[in-house]
Amino acid sequence: MPRYKLTIEYDGSGFVGWQRQNNGPSVQAVVEHGLAHLYREDITVFAAGRTDAGVHATGQVIHFDAPGTLPADKVRDALNYHMKPQPVAVLAAELVDDEFHARFSAIGRSYLFRISNRKAPPTMDQRRVWWVAQKLDAEAMHAGAQFLIGHHDFTTFRATECQAKSPMKTLDRLDVVRVGEEIHIITAARSFLHHQVRNMVGTLKLVGMGSWKPEDVKRALEAKSRAAGGATCPPIGLYLTGVRY
Amino acid sequence: MPRYKLTIEYDGSGFVGWQRQNNGPSVQAVVEHGLAHLYREDITVFAAGRTDAGVHATGQVIHFDAPGTLPADKVRDALNYHMKPQPVAVLAAELVDDEFHARFSAIGRSYLFRISNRKAPPTMDQRRVWWVAQKLDAEAMHAGAQFLIGHHDFTTFRATECQAKSPMKTLDRLDVVRVGEEIHIITAARSFLHHQVRNMVGTLKLVGMGSWKPEDVKRALEAKSRAAGGATCPPIGLYLTGVRY
Repeated sequence: MPRYKLTIEYDGSGFVGWQRQNNGPSVQAVVEHGLAHLYREDITVFAAGRTDAGVHATGQVIHFDAPGTLPADKVRDALNYHMKPQPVAVLAAELVDDEFHARFSAIGRSYLFRISNRKAPPTMDQRRVWWVAQKLDAEAMHAGAQFLIGHHDFTTFRATECQAKSPMKTLDRLDVVRVGEEIHIITAARSFLHHQVRNMVGTLKLVGMGSWKPEDVKRALEAKSRAAGGATCPPIGLYLTGVRY
Repeated sequence: MPRYKLTIEYDGSGFVGWQRQNNGPSVQAVVEHGLAHLYREDITVFAAGRTDAGVHATGQVIHFDAPGTLPADKVRDALNYHMKPQPVAVLAAELVDDEFHARFSAIGRSYLFRISNRKAPPTMDQRRVWWVAQKLDAEAMHAGAQFLIGHHDFTTFRATECQAKSPMKTLDRLDVVRVGEEIHIITAARSFLHHQVRNMVGTLKLVGMGSWKPEDVKRALEAKSRAAGGATCPPIGLYLTGVRY
């Protein structure tokens, strides 16, 4: 059976998350529903990152085994057709060998978090940015962020319900830049703990507001306690932007 | 009575247009409803451009006369509060003298039209871009657009229901640029005929697809007949970006 790797994009606003669940529409269900229409049989898909409710993706990667061989571009276009009008789209499709696994073969994941940082509330991007009206100091946030780069115990930034065996992770990148009226937080690692990005962003916001000094991020990390970090920020500004293999 | 000038932004997706109408929610009604809450009396607002259903704004300008004097920033913040959760926001507010009229004092209007030009359908921006899957040649579109610059009879690009006395207009700018996977059409004039921007965009798309040569735009203009132009493109990619006084 040919295995396909798909790069997909979605607006997570209206979904309970990537994963199929009983309590509402999931991105996985949209994709599997589209594939069922395309191939006339049930197909299970596997994703690199199981994004939470409200989280978006511009570079999620998934794979599935198809019952027949179609050119990859044809799979992309046909699946896009069958997923209409859901806000989920296949950006690229390719045939891969059956060693490839979207989740287990991944060696890097990158995320963007968008904060709308202006007096006026968002309009176009109401469910696609986190709105913080108070002016944030992006440079101070960036300085604080650098204390988190490297191999650390990220217990402070880990959801209490996180199921990872170890809180040890290696953070490769955590950049904070101002882009017009937005603050963008760009991060990359082999993998992240549950809510790690949102807990880091919630903590950096304290630095941006001036409530914390950049060095306080180091102290929070070293405390190895969730209580020492800032509040988990909302999911709506988070985008899974890419997966490396 | 103090007169306020407001710069406002809105996502036009869910509205019947700027103007108050009986057939659905309008942006004007949202703003006037917010002002009624703020001042506890009915207030009429006047806009620089009466955008059509589905058309967005990042720089619409409106004015109104207030029954009392509040600092301009306070008006901005309070009105934003009262318009929640509608996708309409006040970006800036200022006190102006009572000679100022949002519509009649305007000496220039600028618009952006966004085309999503990629194989995959839009997700995040489903109702904020016009999707054209076939690759468009932005340079050819730009070359064709330049024939429209200047003072001309724009009958070819004028809606049949347009109520302007004359089809003569002076077009100051019509640039077409590729921005990643999007084509942006940026235009400016003292004023536009009804559907002029959408009719120009629909015509330039024919050039982008290669169905027309850039010079065919000149021929269409000179025909002075709506039938000689391309089809009116959808409103969803259109943004009123600014008004000059």
